[in-house]
Amino acid sequence: MSEGMRSVSWYFEDFYPGQVIDLGERHVTEAEIIDFARQFDPQPFHIDAAAAAGSIYGGVIASGWHTCSMMMRLVVDGLMAASSSMGSPGLDGVRWLAPVRAGDTLRVRYETVKVKPSESKPDRGVVWSKWVAKNQHGVDVCTIEGMGMFLRRPGAAGDA
Amino acid sequence: MSEGMRSVSWYFEDFYPGQVIDLGERHVTEAEIIDFARQFDPQPFHIDAAAAAGSIYGGVIASGWHTCSMMMRLVVDGLMAASSSMGSPGLDGVRWLAPVRAGDTLRVRYETVKVKPSESKPDRGVVWSKWVAKNQHGVDVCTIEGMGMFLRRPGAAGDA
Repeated sequence: MSEGMRSVSWYFEDFYPGQVIDLGERHVTEAEIIDFARQFDPQPFHIDAAAAAGSIYGGVIASGWHTCSMMMRLVVDGLMAASSSMGSPGLDGVRWLAPVRAGDTLRVRYETVKVKPSESKPDRGVVWSKWVAKNQHGVDVCTIEGMGMFLRRPGAAGDA
Repeated sequence: MSEGMRSVSWYFEDFYPGQVIDLGERHVTEAEIIDFARQFDPQPFHIDAAAAAGSIYGGVIASGWHTCSMMMRLVVDGLMAASSSMGSPGLDGVRWLAPVRAGDTLRVRYETVKVKPSESKPDRGVVWSKWVAKNQHGVDVCTIEGMGMFLRRPGAAGDA
């Protein structure tokens, strides 16, 4: 499937500061917490129930990278997949505010913070966003301040 | 295995600004790029060779979250696993500077930027660090500015 054959409904022009998009939720299982952590973050409080019970967390918690990756999946499914996303130059901050545990359900919200057409490349622009994940108790567990590059709507670049 | 039974050789006191630790390298395969992206970041340029060939990247590239997670694994194996790590409150920035592709070998370096004993909890401190991943061509592909909490060496907290 080529880029051109995808159904793109979100272009750079569709983002505006103050915009809030509910990206739905994802349930977190113990199996996936441990599977991710064994691959990428095998610290005792992520993979070892007994060690985790004796840690400051009192039980196994998800790797922060796993939490971010789960949030990314919701961002892709709920937004990026139907967008002109060209990837990201980076993040301006991540905060792991509360532990994510097996059995939690995370709900993620995308907030558009700032938009800026590229000066050097008139076919695209950068969108700054803040992603917030809340657990089933309404507690914020993670925030991500990110950037994304998006193609401008065909024909719109000439307006710049 | 309890926390107390692990062999801890790195405590908060062992970090100092300017410190540089070579964490070795990791080879990146196409199978793992696609496996990670299918789970967490299924954008066409991460999972679809034909679409990726037609994108600005000219071929499949690793999800930025995958790159960060691979870096984390080197940080855990080369440092955290033998440390008094208590997890992290967050990151102050990530930059994805160049594409990571199948066949690349990433070498990661950990630099200690700042250390600060906790004022509220005398048994621990925070270490600010910068992680840099270079590919086999010597090109920086990703930087991460992170924070980590570490227990102080037993007996040392009383010096604060």
